[in-house]
Amino acid sequence: MKFKSPVPVKWIAEFISAELIGNSEGQVTGLNEIHKVEPGDIVFVDHPKYYDKCINSAASFIIINKKTTFPEGKALLVVDAPFDAYLKLVHHFRPFTPSSKPISESAVIGQDTVVFPNVFIGNNVIIGDNCIIHPNVSIYDDAVIGNNVVIHSGTTIGSDAFYFNTKKDREVWYKKMESCGRVVIEDDVEIGAGCTLDRGVSGDTIIGRGTKFDNMVHIGHDTVIGKNCLFAAQVAVAGAVIIEDGVILWGQVGVSKTLTIGANAVIFAQSGVASSIEGNKVYFGTPVEDANIKKREIVLLKRLPEIWEKVKNLK
Amino acid sequence: MKFKSPVPVKWIAEFISAELIGNSEGQVTGLNEIHKVEPGDIVFVDHPKYYDKCINSAASFIIINKKTTFPEGKALLVVDAPFDAYLKLVHHFRPFTPSSKPISESAVIGQDTVVFPNVFIGNNVIIGDNCIIHPNVSIYDDAVIGNNVVIHSGTTIGSDAFYFNTKKDREVWYKKMESCGRVVIEDDVEIGAGCTLDRGVSGDTIIGRGTKFDNMVHIGHDTVIGKNCLFAAQVAVAGAVIIEDGVILWGQVGVSKTLTIGANAVIFAQSGVASSIEGNKVYFGTPVEDANIKKREIVLLKRLPEIWEKVKNLK
Amino acid sequence: MKFKSPVPVKWIAEFISAELIGNSEGQVTGLNEIHKVEPGDIVFVDHPKYYDKCINSAASFIIINKKTTFPEGKALLVVDAPFDAYLKLVHHFRPFTPSSKPISESAVIGQDTVVFPNVFIGNNVIIGDNCIIHPNVSIYDDAVIGNNVVIHSGTTIGSDAFYFNTKKDREVWYKKMESCGRVVIEDDVEIGAGCTLDRGVSGDTIIGRGTKFDNMVHIGHDTVIGKNCLFAAQVAVAGAVIIEDGVILWGQVGVSKTLTIGANAVIFAQSGVASSIEGNKVYFGTPVEDANIKKREIVLLKRLPEIWEKVKNLK
Repeated sequence: MKFKSPVPVKWIAEFISAELIGNSEGQVTGLNEIHKVEPGDIVFVDHPKYYDKCINSAASFIIINKKTTFPEGKALLVVDAPFDAYLKLVHHFRPFTPSSKPISESAVIGQDTVVFPNVFIGNNVIIGDNCIIHPNVSIYDDAVIGNNVVIHSGTTIGSDAFYFNTKKDREVWYKKMESCGRVVIEDDVEIGAGCTLDRGVSGDTIIGRGTKFDNMVHIGHDTVIGKNCLFAAQVAVAGAVIIEDGVILWGQVGVSKTLTIGANAVIFAQSGVASSIEGNKVYFGTPVEDANIKKREIVLLKRLPEIWEKVKNLK
Repeated sequence: MKFKSPVPVKWIAEFISAELIGNSEGQVTGLNEIHKVEPGDIVFVDHPKYYDKCINSAASFIIINKKTTFPEGKALLVVDAPFDAYLKLVHHFRPFTPSSKPISESAVIGQDTVVFPNVFIGNNVIIGDNCIIHPNVSIYDDAVIGNNVVIHSGTTIGSDAFYFNTKKDREVWYKKMESCGRVVIEDDVEIGAGCTLDRGVSGDTIIGRGTKFDNMVHIGHDTVIGKNCLFAAQVAVAGAVIIEDGVILWGQVGVSKTLTIGANAVIFAQSGVASSIEGNKVYFGTPVEDANIKKREIVLLKRLPEIWEKVKNLK
Repeated sequence: MKFKSPVPVKWIAEFISAELIGNSEGQVTGLNEIHKVEPGDIVFVDHPKYYDKCINSAASFIIINKKTTFPEGKALLVVDAPFDAYLKLVHHFRPFTPSSKPISESAVIGQDTVVFPNVFIGNNVIIGDNCIIHPNVSIYDDAVIGNNVVIHSGTTIGSDAFYFNTKKDREVWYKKMESCGRVVIEDDVEIGAGCTLDRGVSGDTIIGRGTKFDNMVHIGHDTVIGKNCLFAAQVAVAGAVIIEDGVILWGQVGVSKTLTIGANAVIFAQSGVASSIEGNKVYFGTPVEDANIKKREIVLLKRLPEIWEKVKNLK
């Protein structure tokens, strides 16, 4: 997330009780985790495995648990527990102030938009014109929804990222990475009933213009979906995925995290996408492969008894 | 859907600015899309590929974008954009007038039926006697629910069909086919938590007497499910499917559109049904086959390394 | 479930019009179905196939439709329809008295717990300190929720078990086993959006401390999940399953009923678990097997065309 105005890194260092090394006069413009960093951002890293990646990322300020070398112009903020320091900053700059009203007074709702009964709309939500928000929809804080968007009943927009800091030497292994990102839904999108769209950990989950989801579609944090995509019922897409324009996912397809699906790819029902795939092709299977090759495999699978009969006495 | 009373085709032709050819004195009794037509109905067709099917269907009146031959007694209504003309009729005869109350005043609720807090019940909904509607259920307009029906929390009854008119030469590829059909739930049905049942595009989605759904079951538009079926959690059935009486679908089964599953078929968990299958059999796999044959395949799959060792040096 | 105080078996026999044979002076301390019986419990059995199992279980009192031999110290309560007698007892001891308020007056909510708008909290629910219950969550009667628990929108806690008495000679085949058990969620658990957790038929469904669920996770009745487990989106676990501590289920995994998954097992996405598996291993496939063996199978599957070419002319 971006701060409302730049924050002196000196102030942040003092706030989280960090030793500040390097560019102590810098101004911090945003807070992000490593998937989504830009110059001016502050990030954290607490595992030696990721030190290099983090220090050499676009981020300008690094909360870290070890003094080490870093590029000129950047700064380290050295603390014992970088994750806790990061959470302290999230809580300070995006405090949890739950709306006690079904529709927050800070929400903005456009002209000719219909909001049915039993809908929840959180703080700072923006909804465009000519939308229909069906009953029992929940829209968490900070979501941005364009014009002509339809959201069916029971759907959740902006639930927290499923993203945890893991340490197996404490009683509770998984400590939550607080989400401060948003969900952004562009114009002319339709979201079915019972869907769940998680917001970004620190960036945005984006649904592109004209994309349509059937019921019970799940979209993970920070995933970016292109324009004119079509997802059938019970599709699940994990976090930090990029799905380009015009992609069709048929029912119950699963997509693993941090991968890319190229434009106009079509993936048949119940398939599983475990790594990045090219666009303009048709896929099938778990893990997916070219649909024609997969279909040939299925035909030959039925011949396995025959194959076995032929070979069982070979040595 | 059926009109409340017959409508002169002449009036409709004028309303949608169509050239009327043929039986200009006819009375239109209903509006339907091609999956669900009866004599007296008006339908639309905009793609040459479907001209013949549509003109020779049971429908009596055809909105079309080309003058062509047609059976005696029928009429063509020729317009440039049949889909838009169809939508204009849907909006006129089933206008969208969202209830602003959690329970619409036009809804009828039977004796000894319990409606929990935070339930939404739309216009013209009919609910029978001795039902339990758990909290946060959403029931869209026009749904019909029998006696002794239980619907668990978070479930949506009557969300719109996932059904679009596709044209890739416009900025927004998918244009929504407005649903004017209903969901009809017969007596003694139980629907789990977090389920979604789409209403018919113009006909009815029907759940037969005594059928039981576990949680997160999805049923597509115009699908007709028989009596005494049992669907486990996370089953997804696409649109315009026929499932006969006594069918059992175990967890996470997916069923593709416009097919039939015969009575008393049993389908094991995570299977995918891609085409029609006979009743009174047990199935497994994606795509499904006879469960015993599939199990034999799975046993032989485990022998693939052995098979490969035996054959790799053959030529 | 346990009764609030012991109930004389004589009183119960009279209440359900049963012939009482054996220990007629006994005190009944609880009502359970066969998956969850303890000494002092009363159970029912109506099928000869299960007579022995039931009579020789830990239960002290057996509602049965046949006079037969039984261990000393126990009692039989002989009736024509044991299932109906059981339901009569459930209705008497745990009557259905739905709360007409969004938050029942008998619910207890801890300090610093945030309950968002449009949440339903039923009778006798207990929620600990420092929890967040997001909008449109439904919590059925008798659920127990610990401290520091987060539940996201649209989730249902405590829906009825999917558990029926089946008789195909009546018009409605499936007659509901009324649930009188609970859901118990321990401290530091996070439940995603759109999840459904069924309560026990007569025992408890338990989610262990520190376990985290992503969105649309389904948990069946009487299932017991250990501490520090991680379930990704659209996982479905059937009823009466035991999942030990530290288990990871990736997206869309399905788990069949009445089995055990050992501690620290990891199961890759879209896998199906059909029988008990050991802990400390990594699994993949439907049905699951060792992930490395499964991966080798997948590699060899791609060689099936080559294998077929090599063997098709063998005889």
